[in-house]
Amino acid sequence: MPGIPLSVLITGANRGLGLELVRQMAEGPSPIRHLLACCRDPDGPNSQALQDLAKRHPEVVTVIPLDVTDLGSILRCSQWVGSLVGAGGLNLLINNAAILTKDTMQTASPQDMLAAFNTNALGPFNLTKTLLPHLRTAAAASETAAMSCSKAAVINIGSFMSSINRTSQGYGSQPAFSYRVSKAALHMLTVCAARDFRQSEILFAVLHPGWVKSAMGGERAVMEASESARRLIHVMFSLTEEQNGAFLNNEGAPLPW
Amino acid sequence: MPGIPLSVLITGANRGLGLELVRQMAEGPSPIRHLLACCRDPDGPNSQALQDLAKRHPEVVTVIPLDVTDLGSILRCSQWVGSLVGAGGLNLLINNAAILTKDTMQTASPQDMLAAFNTNALGPFNLTKTLLPHLRTAAAASETAAMSCSKAAVINIGSFMSSINRTSQGYGSQPAFSYRVSKAALHMLTVCAARDFRQSEILFAVLHPGWVKSAMGGERAVMEASESARRLIHVMFSLTEEQNGAFLNNEGAPLPW
Repeated sequence: MPGIPLSVLITGANRGLGLELVRQMAEGPSPIRHLLACCRDPDGPNSQALQDLAKRHPEVVTVIPLDVTDLGSILRCSQWVGSLVGAGGLNLLINNAAILTKDTMQTASPQDMLAAFNTNALGPFNLTKTLLPHLRTAAAASETAAMSCSKAAVINIGSFMSSINRTSQGYGSQPAFSYRVSKAALHMLTVCAARDFRQSEILFAVLHPGWVKSAMGGERAVMEASESARRLIHVMFSLTEEQNGAFLNNEGAPLPW
Repeated sequence: MPGIPLSVLITGANRGLGLELVRQMAEGPSPIRHLLACCRDPDGPNSQALQDLAKRHPEVVTVIPLDVTDLGSILRCSQWVGSLVGAGGLNLLINNAAILTKDTMQTASPQDMLAAFNTNALGPFNLTKTLLPHLRTAAAASETAAMSCSKAAVINIGSFMSSINRTSQGYGSQPAFSYRVSKAALHMLTVCAARDFRQSEILFAVLHPGWVKSAMGGERAVMEASESARRLIHVMFSLTEEQNGAFLNNEGAPLPW
């Protein structure tokens, strides 16, 4: 089973939505050739399910240690990625790793603010920039001119909570102040990046996975991670140049920033 | 000349828009009683105009050293503010201090990103939280129930460049990547704060000053700082509860986030 000749890197791949994205891309009807599943602690108890998945698909799934708040870790990851993807480059980077604290402006500390910014915005910034050579290689190696996630793309996972327009509605029941602030930064980053790398033919977009039952989404969430991953994979591989810089839900419909 | 019995603190008050806000609030037809004009280096050459202004209005303008990236500096400032405003509290905090680098995602370093976030978003966060007791005192001391900048308010200075919706238009000629990312964070902060402090009757809003001729705005800017300050003062003192959490231009019209 050689799979579709694409290389996809997913951060926060050991659980929740990240794990489901890896699983479905490895086991779906059109498996991806190289899945680079990154997480902070691959040998820890929270990564067992990912390790089991990698054992079932040793030719497809490679588990890579990655702490997106650590530049050294990012550089080591990038070297590993380069050795794995070779001349094909990295087609798709999914910045999924994120932290969420149930804080308000009153309860958030300066440390909470920096931690959220470092993981949720600066991490994707540093990882994307470090992996750029591999993304550029993929864009150059692609036989098609059209932008897509099969050519070269960066998908940043956002959420309905990171829409400034929607915050006045949802903030009372789900404050998550430091998370919202950091994700708004990630949104702006995505829009700017879409412009910065348009000529490099690397597509950027923010996708909202839905309110997913996971460690982050909590008990009250309405959608299984498997259903969210199924929808997101469909949306990702339907994206075209028209959606470069867009913010879309898990059905591909635009959301307000 | 006792002036209107209000206390107003302005950051980045030594030049550009900040200096004009101090000047007009001190010298306008309805002068403010206490103007707390904060800047990083009050004794430096860039603060001479502010010092001259303070000398002309010693009863009104107090120059206070403040580095919004330094928690110790913020705490010292807050103590000074408390001793000056007393039982009336602080009515209006204008978070005007900001830094702008003409970078793109490709040229911005992690240090640039953190510097912009620290000054433009975390600084207002820390300053606002530290000054909260004085803002609460003002809200409690006010004789009116209606939210306003004459009662208790925090105005965060944004710009057309910090609108995610407008970035795709303006980014090509004015990238300022790290600035835009940090200001998008400030926007989200403002919307959340408007909700968090609604019951405390402290109003929050983002105001866009226009493209102002200043060290930040550059030579091509279209509006004098004096004209921008005149308009912003009018908008600020026209704000009501309906604009709590709003993003408005210098004529009081809503802008897209």
